[in-house]
Amino acid sequence: MDKYVLGVDFGTLSARAILVNALTGEILAEKVSDYEHQVMYKNLPDGTPLPDKFALQHPIDYINALTDTVKGVIKTANVDKDKIVGIANDFTSCTLIPVNKEGVPLCFLDQFKTNPHAYAKLWKHHYSQDLADKITKYCHDFNIPSASFGGKVSSEWLLPKVWETYKFAKDVFDACYRFYEVGDYINYYLTGIENHSVSFLGFKGLWTDKDGFLFKNDVHKLDDGLKGVFGSKISEKFNPVGTSIGKIKKEIAYKLGLSENVFVATSIIDAHASMPALGINEVGNLMLVIGTSACQIVNSDKILDIKGICGYAKDAVLPPYYTYEAGQPSCGDQFKWFIDNCVPYEYKSDALSKGINIHRYLRDKAEKLAPAESGLLSLDWFNGNRSTLNDANLSALILGLNLNTKPEEIYRALLEGTAFGTKMIVDNFEENGLPINKITATGGIANNDPLMMQIYADVLDREIFVSDCTLSGAYGSAIYASVASGIYPDIITASKKLGKTTGKYYYPKKENALIYKKLYAEYKTLYDYFGKGGNDVMKRLIALKTK
Amino acid sequence: MDKYVLGVDFGTLSARAILVNALTGEILAEKVSDYEHQVMYKNLPDGTPLPDKFALQHPIDYINALTDTVKGVIKTANVDKDKIVGIANDFTSCTLIPVNKEGVPLCFLDQFKTNPHAYAKLWKHHYSQDLADKITKYCHDFNIPSASFGGKVSSEWLLPKVWETYKFAKDVFDACYRFYEVGDYINYYLTGIENHSVSFLGFKGLWTDKDGFLFKNDVHKLDDGLKGVFGSKISEKFNPVGTSIGKIKKEIAYKLGLSENVFVATSIIDAHASMPALGINEVGNLMLVIGTSACQIVNSDKILDIKGICGYAKDAVLPPYYTYEAGQPSCGDQFKWFIDNCVPYEYKSDALSKGINIHRYLRDKAEKLAPAESGLLSLDWFNGNRSTLNDANLSALILGLNLNTKPEEIYRALLEGTAFGTKMIVDNFEENGLPINKITATGGIANNDPLMMQIYADVLDREIFVSDCTLSGAYGSAIYASVASGIYPDIITASKKLGKTTGKYYYPKKENALIYKKLYAEYKTLYDYFGKGGNDVMKRLIALKTK
Repeated sequence: MDKYVLGVDFGTLSARAILVNALTGEILAEKVSDYEHQVMYKNLPDGTPLPDKFALQHPIDYINALTDTVKGVIKTANVDKDKIVGIANDFTSCTLIPVNKEGVPLCFLDQFKTNPHAYAKLWKHHYSQDLADKITKYCHDFNIPSASFGGKVSSEWLLPKVWETYKFAKDVFDACYRFYEVGDYINYYLTGIENHSVSFLGFKGLWTDKDGFLFKNDVHKLDDGLKGVFGSKISEKFNPVGTSIGKIKKEIAYKLGLSENVFVATSIIDAHASMPALGINEVGNLMLVIGTSACQIVNSDKILDIKGICGYAKDAVLPPYYTYEAGQPSCGDQFKWFIDNCVPYEYKSDALSKGINIHRYLRDKAEKLAPAESGLLSLDWFNGNRSTLNDANLSALILGLNLNTKPEEIYRALLEGTAFGTKMIVDNFEENGLPINKITATGGIANNDPLMMQIYADVLDREIFVSDCTLSGAYGSAIYASVASGIYPDIITASKKLGKTTGKYYYPKKENALIYKKLYAEYKTLYDYFGKGGNDVMKRLIALKTK
Repeated sequence: MDKYVLGVDFGTLSARAILVNALTGEILAEKVSDYEHQVMYKNLPDGTPLPDKFALQHPIDYINALTDTVKGVIKTANVDKDKIVGIANDFTSCTLIPVNKEGVPLCFLDQFKTNPHAYAKLWKHHYSQDLADKITKYCHDFNIPSASFGGKVSSEWLLPKVWETYKFAKDVFDACYRFYEVGDYINYYLTGIENHSVSFLGFKGLWTDKDGFLFKNDVHKLDDGLKGVFGSKISEKFNPVGTSIGKIKKEIAYKLGLSENVFVATSIIDAHASMPALGINEVGNLMLVIGTSACQIVNSDKILDIKGICGYAKDAVLPPYYTYEAGQPSCGDQFKWFIDNCVPYEYKSDALSKGINIHRYLRDKAEKLAPAESGLLSLDWFNGNRSTLNDANLSALILGLNLNTKPEEIYRALLEGTAFGTKMIVDNFEENGLPINKITATGGIANNDPLMMQIYADVLDREIFVSDCTLSGAYGSAIYASVASGIYPDIITASKKLGKTTGKYYYPKKENALIYKKLYAEYKTLYDYFGKGGNDVMKRLIALKTK
């Protein structure tokens, strides 16, 4: 008998569900649903202004997108609902929401609906770099091994976000019964069972499988008000990936059009879910996820002390391996920024009249340029730097402009800047004892932008394999659901059976690689100068701005 | 009896003539004429491609603009042609053209019309920074006092341009009888009399009134092929400003609709002509000319050794003073670059539908921003840096970008960057013993952009007087013509009688000045790092580009 599983991939701006035949891997239906409020940077829906570096989401959008996409795929696939046996979601992280004892997000309550801290703080909410820096300092002062936290705590993570709430919205903090990663909250919504995935805890929670929360006993040394937060507002229970939390609640099953026998799988970080989907089930095969932001994850069978990455976790992606993660908090979104803010009237008019997508239009022009031809160089820190500097208070730079500089030259310089940023990360893994044997790319940009992928191959001076599995997030979730519902014994086995391994190779062009080597040397000098204390002008400008 | 004089102001993209009553200063008529070929950066008219950093003009455009504007104002004013007694022109510099013994520009000959070096090399033609650097090295090696050349030779000047022609187009060099500054060439065209203004020689010719050409006897040490160039291809005769070259040729007088009794005055650098026009006839009153590029000139009664300026000359603007000049080779043209290349569709559509000029549209948005609000900082080197670094191989930089950066923020950062560049120059004058007692601004931007002028006042933390004489270049030329035709005994007397002294004051806002002081400190650090050898990445990127 056929068995089907649902995978739901929650991205930054939309969610996508797919229905998969768990025995063959056939994808029967797909549906995408945009979040109504997208990302709230400047205002709450009622107009309440937000401070700089805020990035909030409205949790009603997640529930609506879940309902819309799941109902949508079931309708399209038109299969017997009793054959759907599992559901899993993957989610951006750390995207955090405070809920009360009844499991209601605080922003749904009248009392808190005008309080920004009661909403979901999106992964790219960067308000409290100073608190993150204090936690980093504490880690160094108390000799916490840097392997556990990547050497520097990010303002994106759990503890800075919780501390920020305590500091700037004590009423919200007091009313909060649990802080939930939203991926876990979705599962709580589905099952009514409290659950917290080791995926989020291990990568964003300053938690290790060996020692639990690094700060458990000393968090009051950061701030008296945080005393006792672990084990209360931050749960200490955890669920390994690939496990089942339990079955779906009756009323939710009814609402979504499912049977009551659906197993709900532990959630996982969105980018990580792609790994088994692409058939990556070994060590040293770097998965490069390139979309709005970029993320690099790779498995090892060892614990390594690698500074400048986000961290590692065991059993959090592909048990029994240790999975190491690095990331760039801005990639495709800076190209979108460029399109929205910097493309001249004449280009857009021309593209419109020719019926060409504006990204494509610019790419056609940028493709004709040789490396170094424009004389431009960019630092890709439009959203700060995650790896290898882990500093949200950095900003982007474009250098080499002159009166002849054309838009497509700047566009290409931005593409190259993100590729240089990726090379920094790959080099950093290798220099710290984690050899990268293969690079497998996935994500919107990997699949849709051949120019970008050729630039990556040239800059990295390596072959890059781009999987043609364009739904790897949702498809990966479906694989976790298939394990949670007992169809496969473990993720590696499921990945070997269901992983999609067709795609396209990009090979480096030697003459380009040679020039990019020189440009990369220049990038590195600027990277160190602006990122490692040579000139802290970026931080000072941000400080002046927020005064 | 009324007497009238003509002033013709040749700018980078157009010429403007006015007819002035030399006794009252009344302006009777004005006409502007655009150059057909504008600036040729990429190709000659026949399609011949130009190397990077070339900037040529077609001399036929100057002759056509002269004819068109002079005939135009005479027609409009409708005065008795016998009452028009003088004509003077002011011209961009060093804009250089090779001519044969018959006085024909070489590009007019079939033999040379496809040779880029046979055309007029515009002031911003920056092809040979390396040759300029060799001349600088020579000056230092042979202890030539830096006061005579500002400490660093610019690729914009006479000798690098002549040397470049020898090096890359020996046939043009050999066929050239004289290299002419085009301002002088216009007078040659009018009179048939050879003439070379002390204005061009003193500021751009490595020439001093005391010692003549600095290189006269040693130029072969730079390059054997240049031996004997002074006194032959480069004339050693010179004419002080305010003097008459002679009377207009009969056939040209006829062509232009003038009598044969018109005196032709020695030419002067375009920006300098404004000084007597604005009634600046004393020491320490800095004239700030802000247009496509920016130029700062100021009189002193002393010889001072000021590094990082373009140089000084005696009797070249306002005899008997020494006049010191500094400059920024890009100002308004970078805002134009931004408008042409970086303003999004939505803004331009909105401006169009509201019927607002796009500069004005952006300014309205930029005006609402506070200093430091955007977190952006720019280095204004879109066309290299003239003062205080004198280096064409520098490029512009924008730092502090993030995903929320708006076009108007970048626009404002560009405005601020040029203001910081001006402050560097003002500080440099004062630190080297030339006190600036007053600042008088003129030029297209000074008159049309109140936001920019307020930013200048805030950044400089000084009052700025903006003259409302919008035709100061052409009006200044008319003043020189009035002296050359004997109506006034000298420029100071003429300026006191005819100078226009009405206008508007901009006062610094203390709270803005305070923030700009901090931003300026950041600007200065970047200025030194990228401009003084801390990181020569800009030069290396340009070198990689032109390989």
